[in-house]
Amino acid sequence: MISDRKLEHLLICKHFDVQYKNKKTGLKDIELVHKALPEIDKEKIDISTSIFGKKLNSPLFITAITGGHPSATTINRELAIAAESEKIALGLGSQRAAVENKDLIESYSVAREYAPSTLLVGNIGAPQIEYASKAVEMLDGDILAVHLNPLQESIQPEGDLDASGYVESIGRIVDEVDIPVLIKETGTGISGSDAKLLEEQNVSYIDVAGAGGTSWAAVETYRSEDKYLGELFWDWGIPTAVSTVEVSNSVDIPIISSGGIRTGLDAAKAIALGADSVGMALPIMKKAFIGHGEIIKFIKLFNESLKIAMFLVGASNIEELKNSSLIIKGETKEWLDLRGFNTEKYARRRN
Amino acid sequence: MISDRKLEHLLICKHFDVQYKNKKTGLKDIELVHKALPEIDKEKIDISTSIFGKKLNSPLFITAITGGHPSATTINRELAIAAESEKIALGLGSQRAAVENKDLIESYSVAREYAPSTLLVGNIGAPQIEYASKAVEMLDGDILAVHLNPLQESIQPEGDLDASGYVESIGRIVDEVDIPVLIKETGTGISGSDAKLLEEQNVSYIDVAGAGGTSWAAVETYRSEDKYLGELFWDWGIPTAVSTVEVSNSVDIPIISSGGIRTGLDAAKAIALGADSVGMALPIMKKAFIGHGEIIKFIKLFNESLKIAMFLVGASNIEELKNSSLIIKGETKEWLDLRGFNTEKYARRRN
Amino acid sequence: MISDRKLEHLLICKHFDVQYKNKKTGLKDIELVHKALPEIDKEKIDISTSIFGKKLNSPLFITAITGGHPSATTINRELAIAAESEKIALGLGSQRAAVENKDLIESYSVAREYAPSTLLVGNIGAPQIEYASKAVEMLDGDILAVHLNPLQESIQPEGDLDASGYVESIGRIVDEVDIPVLIKETGTGISGSDAKLLEEQNVSYIDVAGAGGTSWAAVETYRSEDKYLGELFWDWGIPTAVSTVEVSNSVDIPIISSGGIRTGLDAAKAIALGADSVGMALPIMKKAFIGHGEIIKFIKLFNESLKIAMFLVGASNIEELKNSSLIIKGETKEWLDLRGFNTEKYARRRN
Amino acid sequence: MISDRKLEHLLICKHFDVQYKNKKTGLKDIELVHKALPEIDKEKIDISTSIFGKKLNSPLFITAITGGHPSATTINRELAIAAESEKIALGLGSQRAAVENKDLIESYSVAREYAPSTLLVGNIGAPQIEYASKAVEMLDGDILAVHLNPLQESIQPEGDLDASGYVESIGRIVDEVDIPVLIKETGTGISGSDAKLLEEQNVSYIDVAGAGGTSWAAVETYRSEDKYLGELFWDWGIPTAVSTVEVSNSVDIPIISSGGIRTGLDAAKAIALGADSVGMALPIMKKAFIGHGEIIKFIKLFNESLKIAMFLVGASNIEELKNSSLIIKGETKEWLDLRGFNTEKYARRRN
Ligand SMILES: Cc1cc2nc3c(=O)[nH]c(=O)nc-3n(C[C@H](O)[C@H](O)[C@H](O)COP(=O)(O)O)c2cc1C
Ligand SMILES: Cc1cc2nc3c(=O)[nH]c(=O)nc-3n(C[C@H](O)[C@H](O)[C@H](O)COP(=O)(O)O)c2cc1C
Ligand SMILES: Cc1cc2nc3c(=O)[nH]c(=O)nc-3n(C[C@H](O)[C@H](O)[C@H](O)COP(=O)(O)O)c2cc1C
Ligand SMILES: Cc1cc2nc3c(=O)[nH]c(=O)nc-3n(C[C@H](O)[C@H](O)[C@H](O)COP(=O)(O)O)c2cc1C
Repeated sequence: MISDRKLEHLLICKHFDVQYKNKKTGLKDIELVHKALPEIDKEKIDISTSIFGKKLNSPLFITAITGGHPSATTINRELAIAAESEKIALGLGSQRAAVENKDLIESYSVAREYAPSTLLVGNIGAPQIEYASKAVEMLDGDILAVHLNPLQESIQPEGDLDASGYVESIGRIVDEVDIPVLIKETGTGISGSDAKLLEEQNVSYIDVAGAGGTSWAAVETYRSEDKYLGELFWDWGIPTAVSTVEVSNSVDIPIISSGGIRTGLDAAKAIALGADSVGMALPIMKKAFIGHGEIIKFIKLFNESLKIAMFLVGASNIEELKNSSLIIKGETKEWLDLRGFNTEKYARRRN
Repeated sequence: MISDRKLEHLLICKHFDVQYKNKKTGLKDIELVHKALPEIDKEKIDISTSIFGKKLNSPLFITAITGGHPSATTINRELAIAAESEKIALGLGSQRAAVENKDLIESYSVAREYAPSTLLVGNIGAPQIEYASKAVEMLDGDILAVHLNPLQESIQPEGDLDASGYVESIGRIVDEVDIPVLIKETGTGISGSDAKLLEEQNVSYIDVAGAGGTSWAAVETYRSEDKYLGELFWDWGIPTAVSTVEVSNSVDIPIISSGGIRTGLDAAKAIALGADSVGMALPIMKKAFIGHGEIIKFIKLFNESLKIAMFLVGASNIEELKNSSLIIKGETKEWLDLRGFNTEKYARRRN
Repeated sequence: MISDRKLEHLLICKHFDVQYKNKKTGLKDIELVHKALPEIDKEKIDISTSIFGKKLNSPLFITAITGGHPSATTINRELAIAAESEKIALGLGSQRAAVENKDLIESYSVAREYAPSTLLVGNIGAPQIEYASKAVEMLDGDILAVHLNPLQESIQPEGDLDASGYVESIGRIVDEVDIPVLIKETGTGISGSDAKLLEEQNVSYIDVAGAGGTSWAAVETYRSEDKYLGELFWDWGIPTAVSTVEVSNSVDIPIISSGGIRTGLDAAKAIALGADSVGMALPIMKKAFIGHGEIIKFIKLFNESLKIAMFLVGASNIEELKNSSLIIKGETKEWLDLRGFNTEKYARRRN
Repeated sequence: MISDRKLEHLLICKHFDVQYKNKKTGLKDIELVHKALPEIDKEKIDISTSIFGKKLNSPLFITAITGGHPSATTINRELAIAAESEKIALGLGSQRAAVENKDLIESYSVAREYAPSTLLVGNIGAPQIEYASKAVEMLDGDILAVHLNPLQESIQPEGDLDASGYVESIGRIVDEVDIPVLIKETGTGISGSDAKLLEEQNVSYIDVAGAGGTSWAAVETYRSEDKYLGELFWDWGIPTAVSTVEVSNSVDIPIISSGGIRTGLDAAKAIALGADSVGMALPIMKKAFIGHGEIIKFIKLFNESLKIAMFLVGASNIEELKNSSLIIKGETKEWLDLRGFNTEKYARRRN
């Protein structure tokens, strides 16, 4: 049952090492250029962002984590309390389970109950895209995220492996549902050309969810009896730093950088690379098991470290951070140079 | 006696570490670019290949392993049962021994007996190229492979070290024998310019058999009393990834990439680098000692992982895989750039 | 109290590892090109430098260390005796404490007492720049250093985080005080563009104090109960080698290279990269706890190793050293190339 | 006494690790390109070289090792027997001691006694260049080597540190003595521009003796009470691979590549990089303590491994080896690119 699988995923992610091993996000290859003369007041740094009319206190999204199992209700409640308190965007897990079984709706709607005002993001997988309208109806959400996860589908025994026609169905759903549609990967990244295909379908937002954080091949390896395929593809994907540059240079719609973002410093780098917001799942999920207090503490620390990074590059708001100088080294540079993305321009900005 | 040497080779390869140490295939430097939107149905992915009129179920060759010793008969029988069952190409070891001693023919012909329909590849060394016609006669093979192994000849005490005139004799043999001739290295690779020489002699197929897998200097080191020379040249050769790019950019005839190919993911990279098929010897030889069941399991897993890699780059057949985007990093890039091969073009393909 | 904090800083720097961890100065990436034919007499090598009219025996500055606490009096006395004996420039720690509490003046003025003739550098932090005139008055110094330390201010609980208007106030102070003004970082480096801003304000000297030596995030981590932010920013900054190239290529005023300089060989590299002098704090502070004898021994060894490096590149004085050939490798090269600084010109000088 | 120092050097080199630590020759960055089709007969490979009219059986020089101490007589006798037997060039240590004390002449002349026909190289240090004529007189040598060793002079207590005027005196000596003059470093390399200076003085031969093998800073560190300076400069110098490329691209006279050459494979790389011969000191010195039998075995193995490398690149003589394709990777490439030497041309030769 889907519902059991959801619980399994949560427990595996909580207890085992599900992150990329030899491949990393590439954010270690990024160096923000220190400004000894920031010429700003750190107390006045503004990290708020406006997303589809809602003003949020931080560019941090809690990206899709869970739903569809009784124990998910608690997790989503804790996430919602924290998201509402800190006024940040909250993504829910795939709503497929609740479309198929109405008893499970509460495990999602609990989020809106405890987070009445903040930005709430529904979620459905591309293979279940025909459920989109029902997912939107069931939840008073602000955005619907459609997730792409061909790697996980390939490794998990129950995987849905017919990915043909997704682009077209995404276009159809964008027209059908009356809230903005966000397309997200789940940890293997999106290339510049795939991002262009999505923009042509009028999606409103892209979450690159690149490689380097949670690996869904890893998660499914723990679930499989035969570990061979999962281990072989454990490190597959486009690193988050690369994917962020590829997508932000290929489309005009706003983008979230996620997949292995762990600190406000990572976030500052990702935003300076071209993202509008950043997302995190795994570390916040772990705090959610303890309670909203821990999540709130974590978010505050995240915001504080983002502000310090911004202070040290002299950026008083997200827009200025997006124009800060940075260096792209190592494999991330190799990748981007070969793909034809200009790495020099980032190093020769104003500071 | 040759026959004993053949057994020795098998046992050394089975029990000792005969692979390259500090030099690798270079396939770790290759990153296929993930397609979050594959737009294909994985179940419909077609990995079949047609080789000289024979349709095979997979681009995987079992490359030359053995023959010429009673115990080789069992190995070749098991290989043949598996190759026939999975419909993949099977290469036999050098037929020199049987040309010189007819009693040993059975150790080769057993393969055709148990693999009546699949593509069977005979084998003779360049130093014994005058045996070519006899090798063809003795075996109902589809192709004759002539192997080049100057490194092994240099290290082994019995080595044949006069390599002059090989190009011309290859040309002569191509005319003489009535089946297509494939030229293969044995694990140190073929350069672009050597490949051109071979194409000019009208050979039909080239197997690069590059460095990074089985090292014949290594094998001969275990056989020698004085290990000095074998250890010194253990890591000599052109890495498989480099050799694949060099050869595929230099000639128009089809090529096999081999030497350290170990998984369907390696295979996908090698094909995207320009190979038409891939080959493997060492891992399959090890399974052959257990029996054809193990080989079949291994081939199925290989095919499955190749298909997953193809799904994740949105390639529904081998031809599309050959046009998938990939990144060439590190030493492999250094090598190819210096040799004048364009590494950017691979990174800027359709996806 | 500031005074206690000063003591804490000294003790932490003496007893704990306060240096950068994963980021280094970049001087390991620099190779001076050996001249087998130096064509000079090592005994005649002249490492003296003239700074604002004072002739010093070595380009080595002891950069700002301490003051403002009774125990600092001893340190500054020992530093002064050694600096006077070896005729090198001596910097004092921030004079803020003494501006706020006259009892502490002696901990600074002791330096002039024991170093009547050498170049003495006063010090005030940019956040306390309004104290500049008082700092100048209190001490018979030759230069006033104004230090920039946004990183430390960000990590320390008592940090002053309003860095707006610093550029303008620096300009004002330059006009106000009647001795030359030197602007220094404290271990995170100065970019080429910040250096230009400073030159426009008519400052006389810049000490890049780059990353790779003492990390003030590290020092403050030891002082904090919550280590999270300090650890996150421990390695923040522009490496000394990079900062030296950036600044020396951006401005015409003289510059000090410091931050992790540890030997005369490091110094030779930094000068060949464009510095006029070099500075050191941490290792000299440690010797100062033992006494001036140790400092003097250390300076003599420093001078001797600088001379050997100069001999081996055939440079008979600092000016010639500045024109010696050197290679810039690795990450330092990556950084400089991306920032648009020509790394070839250093490699193609006369030798 | 010089004589004692000579013994000390021998014993230190025999018993301690005197080689470069973090810096290497750069020969690991060099890859000869394998030729699967050598098109030559290994038995016919000719590694003989003609030097100033003398035909030698191998391009291997035993470079300057010792003399000037009674125990050196034995070493030089063993070296001579081996050099005569294998017909390779033999260099003697600095003859200074014997110029100053005639009793020590025998420790040098023993070499000619036991090596009546092979090429014998005398030796004098640049600081004692006025002894040149006497050194030539004393020994029936074919060439006089003048060695440059500013690093050793800097680290050893007795060092001669006035290196001014060397270029001119070398020119004078070239005119004065009636045998060809070879200039050699002693393990820190020669730059392209220094080589040009030497060619202008009409020297006949240059031995680059680059960094990566025996380090004279290391040797002198073991002799010093204070290890500081020796350790600091232990790894100073131009790596052998770099120096070989720099010099061979800057002058037309023949060059020896040495400094860390250890095998025939190293030698093949050095020759393909532009050297005419190669040299070795440390490993041969160690064999000399055992006896000429060991040296002869070592030389035979060296020749054999050189021939294998030549076979595998299809080079039938030294001249062809000099035109074999090779790849220059890593730091060696970084260094050469920055210095303006074309690294591509080596990769695009005939094979
Ligand atoms: C326990 C868990 C469950 C997840 N479930 C979903 C999901 O239902 N839908 C979805 O779009 N992404 C899901 N994700 C993926 C995340 O939203 C995110 O894209 C990915 O984990 C990479 O981010 P991270 O490295 O910060 O974890 C899940 C992640 C975790 C850890
Ligand atoms: C035990 C063994 C025997 C081999 N014998 C032959 C042979 O007779 N003829 C030949 O062309 N190659 C021979 N090869 C070489 C292989 O065909 C292949 O080119 C090489 O091993 C590299 O591939 P691998 O890394 O997958 O093993 C042999 C390989 C092995 C392991
Ligand atoms: C104990 C200690 C105290 C310092 N206090 C000051 C100070 O008061 N003012 C200042 O400008 N820099 C101060 N610095 C910074 C140094 O002057 C120098 O810029 C920095 O430590 C980097 O150099 P290093 O790596 O050689 O230590 C201090 C450094 C140390 C180690
Ligand atoms: C024990 C010993 C003594 C040496 N003495 C001399 C010498 O007297 N004159 C000289 O030119 N080089 C001398 N050398 C330097 C060598 O000729 C050679 O240039 C250097 O050791 C680098 O080569 P290697 O790495 O093969 O040892 C000596 C080397 C050794 C190991």
